[in-house]
Amino acid sequence: MTLDPLNATADKSTPTEQRNRARRGRLSRRNAPSERAPFTGRKIPAYNLLSDTALTRIEDQADWILSKIGIEFRGDHAALDHFAQAGARIDGERVRFEPGHVRALCARAPSKFQLHGRDPAKTVTLGGDNVVLMPGYGSPFVSDLVKGRRYATLEDFRNFVKLAYSAPALHHSGGTVVEPTDIPVNKRHLDMMLAHLTLSTKPFMGSVTAPDRAQDSIEMARLVFARNFMDRHAVMQANINVNSPLIYDDTMSSALRIYAEAGQCVCVSPAIFAGAMGPLSPAAVAAQTLAEAMVGIALAQLVRPGCPVVFGSFHSTMNLRTGALTFGSPEANMTTMALTQLGRRLGVPVRSGGGQITASNAPDGQAMQDSTGAMWSTLLSGAHQIWHAAGWLEGGLVMSYEKFIMDLDHCGAMLKLLQGFATDDEAFGRDAYFETGPGENFLSTSHTLRHYTTANFEPQISDAGPYETWSENGALTADQRATARWHQMSNEYQRPEMKPSIQAALEDFVSERKAQMPDEWY
Amino acid sequence: MTLDPLNATADKSTPTEQRNRARRGRLSRRNAPSERAPFTGRKIPAYNLLSDTALTRIEDQADWILSKIGIEFRGDHAALDHFAQAGARIDGERVRFEPGHVRALCARAPSKFQLHGRDPAKTVTLGGDNVVLMPGYGSPFVSDLVKGRRYATLEDFRNFVKLAYSAPALHHSGGTVVEPTDIPVNKRHLDMMLAHLTLSTKPFMGSVTAPDRAQDSIEMARLVFARNFMDRHAVMQANINVNSPLIYDDTMSSALRIYAEAGQCVCVSPAIFAGAMGPLSPAAVAAQTLAEAMVGIALAQLVRPGCPVVFGSFHSTMNLRTGALTFGSPEANMTTMALTQLGRRLGVPVRSGGGQITASNAPDGQAMQDSTGAMWSTLLSGAHQIWHAAGWLEGGLVMSYEKFIMDLDHCGAMLKLLQGFATDDEAFGRDAYFETGPGENFLSTSHTLRHYTTANFEPQISDAGPYETWSENGALTADQRATARWHQMSNEYQRPEMKPSIQAALEDFVSERKAQMPDEWY
Repeated sequence: MTLDPLNATADKSTPTEQRNRARRGRLSRRNAPSERAPFTGRKIPAYNLLSDTALTRIEDQADWILSKIGIEFRGDHAALDHFAQAGARIDGERVRFEPGHVRALCARAPSKFQLHGRDPAKTVTLGGDNVVLMPGYGSPFVSDLVKGRRYATLEDFRNFVKLAYSAPALHHSGGTVVEPTDIPVNKRHLDMMLAHLTLSTKPFMGSVTAPDRAQDSIEMARLVFARNFMDRHAVMQANINVNSPLIYDDTMSSALRIYAEAGQCVCVSPAIFAGAMGPLSPAAVAAQTLAEAMVGIALAQLVRPGCPVVFGSFHSTMNLRTGALTFGSPEANMTTMALTQLGRRLGVPVRSGGGQITASNAPDGQAMQDSTGAMWSTLLSGAHQIWHAAGWLEGGLVMSYEKFIMDLDHCGAMLKLLQGFATDDEAFGRDAYFETGPGENFLSTSHTLRHYTTANFEPQISDAGPYETWSENGALTADQRATARWHQMSNEYQRPEMKPSIQAALEDFVSERKAQMPDEWY
Repeated sequence: MTLDPLNATADKSTPTEQRNRARRGRLSRRNAPSERAPFTGRKIPAYNLLSDTALTRIEDQADWILSKIGIEFRGDHAALDHFAQAGARIDGERVRFEPGHVRALCARAPSKFQLHGRDPAKTVTLGGDNVVLMPGYGSPFVSDLVKGRRYATLEDFRNFVKLAYSAPALHHSGGTVVEPTDIPVNKRHLDMMLAHLTLSTKPFMGSVTAPDRAQDSIEMARLVFARNFMDRHAVMQANINVNSPLIYDDTMSSALRIYAEAGQCVCVSPAIFAGAMGPLSPAAVAAQTLAEAMVGIALAQLVRPGCPVVFGSFHSTMNLRTGALTFGSPEANMTTMALTQLGRRLGVPVRSGGGQITASNAPDGQAMQDSTGAMWSTLLSGAHQIWHAAGWLEGGLVMSYEKFIMDLDHCGAMLKLLQGFATDDEAFGRDAYFETGPGENFLSTSHTLRHYTTANFEPQISDAGPYETWSENGALTADQRATARWHQMSNEYQRPEMKPSIQAALEDFVSERKAQMPDEWY
């Protein structure tokens, strides 16, 4: 069956489904956070770093990799069968493709689709000029300035889901926002899904770490969104990491097939540190990423034509003298910009790497220098989905509560920047020049009074006050000021309502599945 | 006399001048800093935020301002006479221009010219795809983490000139890098010029705070570069700040005329905080900046056709509820990008605002978030000269030694980014794929070994090491790590050689001029 990545205008849901979604919307809007900002798309041009000639050369290199070297699917005969039937050359677990073949298979993927939120007002569109920001992913540790650095727990996971729900600048609840290390490995996905589904109404990601966990994630989502609805609409995403270089392991390709069969969004992300999992140049990393990602996207289309996908990437650089992983480097930022262009040419939504990432061990000047530059490269190049937009520290080992807050300020600033600015008559304020004259002040002109409350983005953490006042208030640096803000956001969090029967069904599902399995801690 | 802004290929200097410059070059190269990086231009496309339609609307608004409101030249009859002779409408001290008139006068300015360093290897080109970075300007205070925040002294001034000379990422020595507040106001320019001319060989800016100080600056430069050479080549710049809104005061327009008469570069920078010195929108600030700057550029051309100029701007936003000045805001960054485009259309080199600026009171996460975003907007939009690229803190009140060092890392990273990356065969490293296979590591491939020492920009302050090591080493944040670096750079500074007779002439000039004037402290 072909999946139709519907827009609202082509809604084929049943009347009952539509009523249910409308009710979900009403209920969750009732308790919506006060600081709601509308979802915003990009209204300024995307920046094109590379020429068409350079892009074609990279695409040709991706084809070369796929035809001469190939990709291995280790232990997944179903995947190999799909490719064999599509006409690829199979040699053991190695798959090779004629130039252009994989790209042609990817053509069935939609260029734009919706990812539905439990609250319809939180539904986002991936593709086109839309931008979807989400928090960090996968950190085993958390830190805050009061309690310090420690292993992440389920309580931390729930805290970050709540904070992301409360943050107008984030459009997505994320996936494994942090690893809930106090829960057995084989049961974490149940608690994580429960948190995303009950504490937030924004789109989210399900588990991929084992086939049964992927299936559990989909089953839980169906308790909320209904199987019929989900068969034609994406409500969740799967993070399929390629085991770069050039390998899909059984766990990942199985999860990919399970989500694709369920018609849910598959984000395929090769993971390449330049010089380790691929050659060290931006051009080589971009080509290999494109090759690896296209194969996963193609598999999703073979499993279910029209399956919504995201062309993803997790790439960065390293200090090639010490082996330390580096983030926000100029080479990595250029690779991000190149990947956005390559993904747009492929015709699917792009997660091109980047986000607000850093190797810094503290939410300090280095952290924000790295993060801000990486975010500029990601957003200005026109990426559609930005992972790790808030909280990421220590190369992803840590989610920092304070950095999360500092990053939100920059997310909001960049969303404002992506709106561009008006050049209409009202913007020029000609009347103000007749109210003042050379050398006079514009602050009290009626033009200023008409617009001063909405003219500028207003960050939460930035302090532009005088040194003396700042000093008297304790000379707090930005990270120190952020502590009070995340405490405040946590305290003001209001849980969105959920129909009690659905809540009960979710909790029963979790209890039953947990009871069926012994705890596994590795 | 028409000034010819020569490139080296059209060098009209006398053989003696050429010999002198060659000798200066040899002498200064002998003691050049070891970390020399070649001057680098931009090889990636400039980002165009605005459409031609939007740019035309802003240009039309600038024409409206100049024809309907006009600009005042207060107390400078020579300037008014120039404009009267050019056909402008004069009403008292107010000058109005027919639409298009000022732009036509600006057409005589060169689109590209050289700014000569005492060491020819330090000569830079302004315009085209060239990028010139310089340190902060004008701070009355300095701070470092050892001695704290304090009034700047001549020693600080000399320290920053030395640091800028030693920094490969800076191409220019700056102007009033900090205010040497321990020197009488009427004598500071002599010590500042002496420092730029003797402690560095990079291009610099002269004094503009009084006509005789401007003249002194030029006379001192002539002792080094020779009058004949300077009559046809720019070796220094003047920072002409418009007293926005819409006023040139006598001090600034006189300094402008003096530098223009001497054939030296005039950078005209309106100073607009959106909502205070002009209407609060980016479109209005861009239009007013264009109007004000064009008039100064036109005056320079009337004084001396062909005078090298820079279309400058010092603009930013404010918190319109509290009045606090803000830097690195999305609205200011968009204005910077628009101004770059407007300046490029005007056909002169652009200083469009931006740089690494912040209102933060500490070199913390906010400081680098603000600074990094502002720098991206400035450099990606294609600005030619970037002021405040290093050290700026507290909205310019403070030059921070540590932030200077942290900013240098980002200057270097951005200069690397502006080079783009290769997509030639060698970049793709096909041979590496035959040395490894799927799942294997590329670190020991011959492709990696061929390139690992030059592949990545290597910052000085960033720490990508493990948390445990960082913690054992004292858990130093980036600003704390920067202290050791600036101490090291200061200790390793090597003063460039200068012919003893020139050194003596400069010192004599300073002594004589100081003896002629009583100290003035305000």
